[in-house]
Amino acid sequence: MAMRVGVVLSGCGVFDGSEIHEAVSVLIALDKQGAQVVCMAPNVVQAEVINHATRKPASGGRNVLEESARIARGQIRDMATVNAEQLDALVFPGGFGAVKNLSTFAKDGAGMKVNPEVARLVGEMVKAKKPIGLACIAPVLAAGILGAMGLKPRVTIGTDNGTAQAIGAMKATHVEAGPTDVCVDEVNRIVTTPCYMTAGGPWQVYQGAEKMVAEVLRMAGIK
Amino acid sequence: MAMRVGVVLSGCGVFDGSEIHEAVSVLIALDKQGAQVVCMAPNVVQAEVINHATRKPASGGRNVLEESARIARGQIRDMATVNAEQLDALVFPGGFGAVKNLSTFAKDGAGMKVNPEVARLVGEMVKAKKPIGLACIAPVLAAGILGAMGLKPRVTIGTDNGTAQAIGAMKATHVEAGPTDVCVDEVNRIVTTPCYMTAGGPWQVYQGAEKMVAEVLRMAGIK
Repeated sequence: MAMRVGVVLSGCGVFDGSEIHEAVSVLIALDKQGAQVVCMAPNVVQAEVINHATRKPASGGRNVLEESARIARGQIRDMATVNAEQLDALVFPGGFGAVKNLSTFAKDGAGMKVNPEVARLVGEMVKAKKPIGLACIAPVLAAGILGAMGLKPRVTIGTDNGTAQAIGAMKATHVEAGPTDVCVDEVNRIVTTPCYMTAGGPWQVYQGAEKMVAEVLRMAGIK
Repeated sequence: MAMRVGVVLSGCGVFDGSEIHEAVSVLIALDKQGAQVVCMAPNVVQAEVINHATRKPASGGRNVLEESARIARGQIRDMATVNAEQLDALVFPGGFGAVKNLSTFAKDGAGMKVNPEVARLVGEMVKAKKPIGLACIAPVLAAGILGAMGLKPRVTIGTDNGTAQAIGAMKATHVEAGPTDVCVDEVNRIVTTPCYMTAGGPWQVYQGAEKMVAEVLRMAGIK
């Protein structure tokens, strides 16, 4: 039986949604390992739209599910319809969407709010002892959600000091890691990798994502 | 000296722009080989905007350069400012953007018009004997432009009969190929691979893109 792995997207583009190289690297690595992928996103309006050519705010609202569908080639589900029983593992690529649309970390830091569907599904996965992988800035979601559950997860976002301190403030432990390293928390079944928090280009991003996916699938095979 | 490779994007999303898995696969493979990548796109309005969740037309215009910038993480140039002297090779990922924004093939078939900057830069590369790689449906661009130059290029788009016939009508030769195969035209220095014209998922797409990139870089090293 193929492993069923959810991939949570947060829009389409590093500055206001999912980081595209990270999301696609996760999809390539999962497909290479024969996993059955379930792409999903919350059906909410984006916190903002950024013109990626100028990096300035743009007018016109966009929907997180519709924009995420671009990365998923239309094969995407509203996250509200997905529960942990349907999955063996869950993966979050990074990008500002993780901290603008899936949570408010970009604005509120350690005092962030988490999208209710994200908090629900992550909570279900944790209770079912199913592994979760997170890349780039997305590990702040695990820090916040598991930290609030009193679980003290160990995660990495690379080496960024400010983010590492916020992770500590959310009752999680930050571990420094290089661009293609993974941080494996066997107790809480959380696997994290820095990707573009430290990576110099798409090949390093792919290598980190592939290692993260390999650890997540290994854990998913251990009941 | 690193090879300087232009990557021509056509928006962001398979149904109205660049196919994202193909574009990112090309970027990963080029970075893995140490190439210096120059992402570019024409600065024009998209032919249409498709809601990728519903696959139906959406309102609100989008700009090809701005949407392409999402895939390029903001590091992108207006194609009008790029010439063949600045490049050792040129690569076109696929997606409907290649046949809606870079050309009108989706609407007009073999009677298509090609975006003037695309026609200019491809023509310059061909005259300078610099290699061009194309994935998925993008090989119709080489068929049309080189066919009109009387060069009879050999290209593949996989096995789709209708598209193969249109390629013949544009005075090019279609060669059938499997999902991860490449078609190498040594005379005209054109390398093509089917990607999502036949591929079953992102891992096959990556493998085809990596082989195409390898052949393009090999040719770029032969003066």
